[in-house]
Amino acid sequence: MSLSRYDIVVVGGGAGGFTAAQTAKTVYKDKSVLLITKEAKAVIPCAIPYVAFTIDSCDKMLMPYDVLRKLGVDIVVDEVVDVDRKGKRVVTASGKSFEYGKLILAVGGAPSAPPIEGLNLKNVYMVYKGYEKVAELQKALREVKRVVIIGGGFIGVELADDLSELKKDVTIVEILPHCLLLNFDEEFAAVAEEELRKKGVRIVTGRTVKRVLGKEAAEGVELDNGERIPADLVIVATGYRPSTELAKKIGLRVSEYGIVVDDYMRTSDPDILAVGDCAEKKHFLLGTPTPALLASIACQEARIAILNLYGVRMSRRTEGWVGAFVTKIGNLVLGASGATERFAKQRNIEYVAGKAKAINRHPAWLPGGCEVEVKLVFLKSGTLIGAQVAGYCNEVAELANALALAVQNKMRIDEIIAMQFGTHPKLTASPISTPVILAALDAYTKL
Amino acid sequence: MSLSRYDIVVVGGGAGGFTAAQTAKTVYKDKSVLLITKEAKAVIPCAIPYVAFTIDSCDKMLMPYDVLRKLGVDIVVDEVVDVDRKGKRVVTASGKSFEYGKLILAVGGAPSAPPIEGLNLKNVYMVYKGYEKVAELQKALREVKRVVIIGGGFIGVELADDLSELKKDVTIVEILPHCLLLNFDEEFAAVAEEELRKKGVRIVTGRTVKRVLGKEAAEGVELDNGERIPADLVIVATGYRPSTELAKKIGLRVSEYGIVVDDYMRTSDPDILAVGDCAEKKHFLLGTPTPALLASIACQEARIAILNLYGVRMSRRTEGWVGAFVTKIGNLVLGASGATERFAKQRNIEYVAGKAKAINRHPAWLPGGCEVEVKLVFLKSGTLIGAQVAGYCNEVAELANALALAVQNKMRIDEIIAMQFGTHPKLTASPISTPVILAALDAYTKL
Repeated sequence: MSLSRYDIVVVGGGAGGFTAAQTAKTVYKDKSVLLITKEAKAVIPCAIPYVAFTIDSCDKMLMPYDVLRKLGVDIVVDEVVDVDRKGKRVVTASGKSFEYGKLILAVGGAPSAPPIEGLNLKNVYMVYKGYEKVAELQKALREVKRVVIIGGGFIGVELADDLSELKKDVTIVEILPHCLLLNFDEEFAAVAEEELRKKGVRIVTGRTVKRVLGKEAAEGVELDNGERIPADLVIVATGYRPSTELAKKIGLRVSEYGIVVDDYMRTSDPDILAVGDCAEKKHFLLGTPTPALLASIACQEARIAILNLYGVRMSRRTEGWVGAFVTKIGNLVLGASGATERFAKQRNIEYVAGKAKAINRHPAWLPGGCEVEVKLVFLKSGTLIGAQVAGYCNEVAELANALALAVQNKMRIDEIIAMQFGTHPKLTASPISTPVILAALDAYTKL
Repeated sequence: MSLSRYDIVVVGGGAGGFTAAQTAKTVYKDKSVLLITKEAKAVIPCAIPYVAFTIDSCDKMLMPYDVLRKLGVDIVVDEVVDVDRKGKRVVTASGKSFEYGKLILAVGGAPSAPPIEGLNLKNVYMVYKGYEKVAELQKALREVKRVVIIGGGFIGVELADDLSELKKDVTIVEILPHCLLLNFDEEFAAVAEEELRKKGVRIVTGRTVKRVLGKEAAEGVELDNGERIPADLVIVATGYRPSTELAKKIGLRVSEYGIVVDDYMRTSDPDILAVGDCAEKKHFLLGTPTPALLASIACQEARIAILNLYGVRMSRRTEGWVGAFVTKIGNLVLGASGATERFAKQRNIEYVAGKAKAINRHPAWLPGGCEVEVKLVFLKSGTLIGAQVAGYCNEVAELANALALAVQNKMRIDEIIAMQFGTHPKLTASPISTPVILAALDAYTKL
């Protein structure tokens, strides 16, 4: 069913590859598009932390490849093992070969682990994204009682939340003073931790795991202070690193942060682009390469790559990743984008921060309301560089997205104070107490 | 307890006046601020449509004047009947007088009615915002069975929704082909109407009311086609006009659209500013005076006025109202900002529109998800000028606000396609199917 030559070949069936193929076939209807993916069934990566309780089968969390097929994308399940750049041809593990006009590498990343002894023991799991690996983790999680999670980032925290629903005995070990501290300031992180503790999760912060204990299977972990925590299963959720093996092999420029790309996602080969976890990313504020292995960023990069595939067409190139993060712990919803106050402080960025909270109903006693807290971080010159928001209701997620857009648009403090935000008694805070605006006003008084 | 001279005197205790006083005392802590309001107890204006069922007492929907008092704002309950501009002094109905440094007029608007016979009959109500008037309407609504609402804008539609919860026999008569058509395109308006009809509301569109029938009390209405609709109570919800009597009396420049102000809300007197329903408003796209009597816009104008009170300080002046509207009918939430496709068509604006929908969970079967539909309207040159969104869940409200910010930031179509939006399995659509992005992509293919 597949041709031997395609206008556009996408390698990788994750969020970035999927979006590249989808956008390509939407924007360039006459071009032939091939997606080569290692897995016939791939899981939605963002949903992996929820395989403990919320999602009982990997088959209920599959990437919707049928959407691509309906659009007219051909899909081949195989692994690309080489690229003949001169002949513009990819070669697969099963010996097939496809010529390409443009090649999009969306080969993703792999879990990375700090140097801990005993990671090779049975019952120690890294959070891989492949179907089989996720299914294996899911099965294992349900059979054990005591779980230690190394790493209190989004995946660790979401896994702990979901495991707590199964009444497992869960401990998170986080190296920083709080969980989620790369994306939230201490006071927001503390609320998240409180919520996890309420659900029975134990959180050990400011500590590292020195070794995993046990002979064949993991029996626990030993911390840097000598404390031992027994465990039937250990999960390493300390982040991912870009997969650059193929790119290196075929001679593309690669750095420790991934495949080197320009602001239009073009690699050192003019006909090869790279998007998602495998590609180097630039921080929006620092301008320097900084990791950000996140599905929503992979999708963004895929769209940028495709729009500029046949020449630069965008009115604005990517200006680096801002990061728009949303998570839920119990009923607490947290969102963040851009820089935290902690980030600004550590990097000697002159900032001013403001905070406000309000119940998202008016009058406030109307049913379903929750208190929403907003924190905004501005440069001293007045440009918004970061936003955080928290509250016990789902509306917080899209409010976090509104704030992410404000950061991406480099809104100024007075523009936020004077912005128009829709309000409704049953849905939002009153226009006199919109927390985003009052947080900006709080910061304004400190300028 | 009040002084005879204040640095800042605000006239009017509605959303605009409240916000002016609040912002003034927040930004200029050392200035003395006086709010003069006609009512000791004022109701939250946005909540008025919900007095039929949701809110059972006006005392449960009061403006929180205590917040102002705590900030240090003095409040006097009285009516300003004159201003001595030369002596910089306001005079009240009870004979008091206060000198001002800067005067903010936030005197609001009054309901306006089309020329219909019989509006003077008993049981014909305009939607006034005063406490006593709202209490009177509330009492009357609960005593009758059959209600005709003239006008299918936000207030008419929200009133009908709330009345339907009391199993009243409700009819809306709307002059345009659909309800809500000033802010939504037909297909969104149709969904809103369907929801109202499901709740038993009768909707007559494309018709006007010729006269209210009855001798002393209203017994029904007669439409322009001769049809008669019986009613025990008739509500006129056809809009508001700015209150400009005081401004005219004291010689400020006034147009048919309100008190004339510049982009910083300054009137023709350099020490008098006007904000909210009483002030003239400019449309963001047309640049011409256009009515927009909305609490959230009044609050915006109050903040602009205060920030520029002692000289222009904002990096960007108001560029006209975009309008950020959010409403809820049953469980359907609708949001809009900027121009609709209909608006663009009628005014010969060259546009391209795009649409997309997606369930806001991934995988989509996760609990609590709803299908969210987004429509975006762009200039042919690529600038976003309008957005509409609908879905059966509360998250739609803040998504509407994210879109309102996108319009206010004049985002370009490719910036929206390449934007970063936070996603989470339990809270949003997947990053591969973010409806805002896919709607922009849909429009992009038509450029």
